[in-house]
Amino acid sequence: MLEVNQDYLKLRGSYLFSEIGKRVNAYAKANPDKKIIRLGIGDVTKPLPPVVIDALHKAVDEMASEETFRGYAPDLGYEFLRNAISDVDYKRLGCDIAPDEIFVSDGAKCDCGNIQEIFSKDAKIAVCDPVYPVYVDTNVMAGRAGVFDEAKGMWDNIIYMPCTKDNNFAPELPSEVPDVIYLCFPNNPTGSTITKDMLQVWVDYANKNGSVILYDAAYEAYISESDVPHSIYECEGARECAIELKSFSKNAGFTGLRLGYTVIPKSLVRGGTMLHSLWARRHGTKYNGAPYIVQRAGEAVYSAEGQKQIKETVGYYMNNAKVILSGLKDAGFEVSGGVNAPYIWLKTPDKMTSWDFFDHLLNNANVVGTPGVGFGASGEGYFRLTAFGKYDATLEAIERIRRM
Amino acid sequence: MLEVNQDYLKLRGSYLFSEIGKRVNAYAKANPDKKIIRLGIGDVTKPLPPVVIDALHKAVDEMASEETFRGYAPDLGYEFLRNAISDVDYKRLGCDIAPDEIFVSDGAKCDCGNIQEIFSKDAKIAVCDPVYPVYVDTNVMAGRAGVFDEAKGMWDNIIYMPCTKDNNFAPELPSEVPDVIYLCFPNNPTGSTITKDMLQVWVDYANKNGSVILYDAAYEAYISESDVPHSIYECEGARECAIELKSFSKNAGFTGLRLGYTVIPKSLVRGGTMLHSLWARRHGTKYNGAPYIVQRAGEAVYSAEGQKQIKETVGYYMNNAKVILSGLKDAGFEVSGGVNAPYIWLKTPDKMTSWDFFDHLLNNANVVGTPGVGFGASGEGYFRLTAFGKYDATLEAIERIRRM
Repeated sequence: MLEVNQDYLKLRGSYLFSEIGKRVNAYAKANPDKKIIRLGIGDVTKPLPPVVIDALHKAVDEMASEETFRGYAPDLGYEFLRNAISDVDYKRLGCDIAPDEIFVSDGAKCDCGNIQEIFSKDAKIAVCDPVYPVYVDTNVMAGRAGVFDEAKGMWDNIIYMPCTKDNNFAPELPSEVPDVIYLCFPNNPTGSTITKDMLQVWVDYANKNGSVILYDAAYEAYISESDVPHSIYECEGARECAIELKSFSKNAGFTGLRLGYTVIPKSLVRGGTMLHSLWARRHGTKYNGAPYIVQRAGEAVYSAEGQKQIKETVGYYMNNAKVILSGLKDAGFEVSGGVNAPYIWLKTPDKMTSWDFFDHLLNNANVVGTPGVGFGASGEGYFRLTAFGKYDATLEAIERIRRM
Repeated sequence: MLEVNQDYLKLRGSYLFSEIGKRVNAYAKANPDKKIIRLGIGDVTKPLPPVVIDALHKAVDEMASEETFRGYAPDLGYEFLRNAISDVDYKRLGCDIAPDEIFVSDGAKCDCGNIQEIFSKDAKIAVCDPVYPVYVDTNVMAGRAGVFDEAKGMWDNIIYMPCTKDNNFAPELPSEVPDVIYLCFPNNPTGSTITKDMLQVWVDYANKNGSVILYDAAYEAYISESDVPHSIYECEGARECAIELKSFSKNAGFTGLRLGYTVIPKSLVRGGTMLHSLWARRHGTKYNGAPYIVQRAGEAVYSAEGQKQIKETVGYYMNNAKVILSGLKDAGFEVSGGVNAPYIWLKTPDKMTSWDFFDHLLNNANVVGTPGVGFGASGEGYFRLTAFGKYDATLEAIERIRRM
């Protein structure tokens, strides 16, 4: 008799955003006249940039003719895209990342969920708390998390690095040395970030201890301050300890198009094995490449016109962030984030729990946000709002919250 | 110090098609004047059908406007596509598969590589020999395969079911009961198939023993004989023991577009857990859906015009299969397959090994095929040719082989 993967059964409830979806659907069904404004899930609302649309149409036409049709893509992604990424995202920053150190994929969520496979099952992981749930859940599914402590709301074999008001939502070096350190800056969910000097401390720590840093830079396009690094490879020694994950979702609106990439420098070696080889093997064995037409769409993002168009969209969302930040401050909320990130992190009023505030906001302002506790125990009493809504809806949402 | 996943290090050499690519590239570089004909990898050569091109353009236009833009897709895939699959691929055959038992993905390779994750690490798997390498390699990576026996060319913890001339390339029930049985009909690589009565024997065996069958039906569109089942759900009791995997690659030319799906009936339960729930959890946690535009392309395949257009393309490839089959028979080769499948399986002449014949064919006819031994020990002395080439090139390849 087949047994199922018992580690899957350890998972807590359903995935955060599925639970939110359920509550919102139930409310909407019971209150069909209410206009719900969604500032919860980090999905974009602006359409794809014109250069991307043009590139897609052109690539679709290529697929219509025998002479230009493309079948299976190269394992690591098309060179035209990997070259553009290397040039624009790395060489321009002075980072030495070669095209063949870049693995194109269908998104950073898949990559950050799958990457743990190349590590030993005994690898000890460290995560920020609060944190993007995928990092934790995929390690639970792989049997690395240990036992869930109901009282603490934590897994007993994961190292949690609290990010609270006291440390300005930036983690401190853990006392127990982890094998794998998940970092995400600009941060989801808190919207906080880290200076280049602070990130260098993490790189030095990882190199000293043989740890590997998984650096999720999905929100890099939202950086507005000059001392915030755009890539971990701006730090000295990062090629020896860091894997970087990037997404086209938040900068270019690819949430429904699916494209991302992972960088593994060839100089990142553990136990005599290049991690690059392991990930290449996974790509070759379990994956078949991102669609050709989507890779062409990604290439268009790196054109001069593409770069201009995505900056405009990012500017639109960051204007929303300002509206939310200043509106909530005026209303007396304690807020952070929203300066180098599309997320605003607020303290719930009157010591409400995160989920109580979720229901409160849904019922009284018909606004959907994300409960901070859904991101980890240290997120309890906090709440995330996103700047990805439409401007008018964002204005109205803040107005409703102020009136509450 | 981080340790890597030691199971990855057990993998044998590189993935079959990577090795073929290396040898062909080396030959092409040394012989730039030779015109190489590729009948090796199972990639299609005909462009996408017109209905698919139209659907893609239309969907791309939707992504250009704020009113019709689509972000993150529903976890299991869009309903419009899952309804079409349920109606055309299942209800039309009399199979009771509901839309919410269908998981849309970016391809059958990913699904058949990832599906083993929901099983216990101790699950004992059985595969046909020869077999599509992904089934074996992904279980090696998960630590289920045991130790590789160099002399036998086999993993000591995998149950191999030899498919040879003696059993007409159809596996027999194994003496040791497996937890998971991988079956692929029409078969890759042998091109053989199975009657509905024979498949019913497997379903009954699985239900009797609590095994789960992973049924890879990627080549279903190539079935030409009436007693060959198009889905395992044509068999009684399959809803209690079978997962079916399907692809848009071979019927509609989506190799570079990426779309597939997996069916897990809600009545498939082991140890009190619906496998459907586990796969849904994996989709929600590690995957973010196939691109909206590609799902619309998939929907178009199910329109009346789409069904007509894909039949034409399949007919074109099956005509190639006839050319290969009859040409090789005339030339004195021992061949099979090619009637319900786009693959022709031939015995190498003069007791050559599969790789010797690969090099022989590459050097003397400039034709690329796939060495049978790359699919398993019982494939030694065999060779696979595919019908996915262009007609003229296929004719010429066979002419060159006859002249060898």
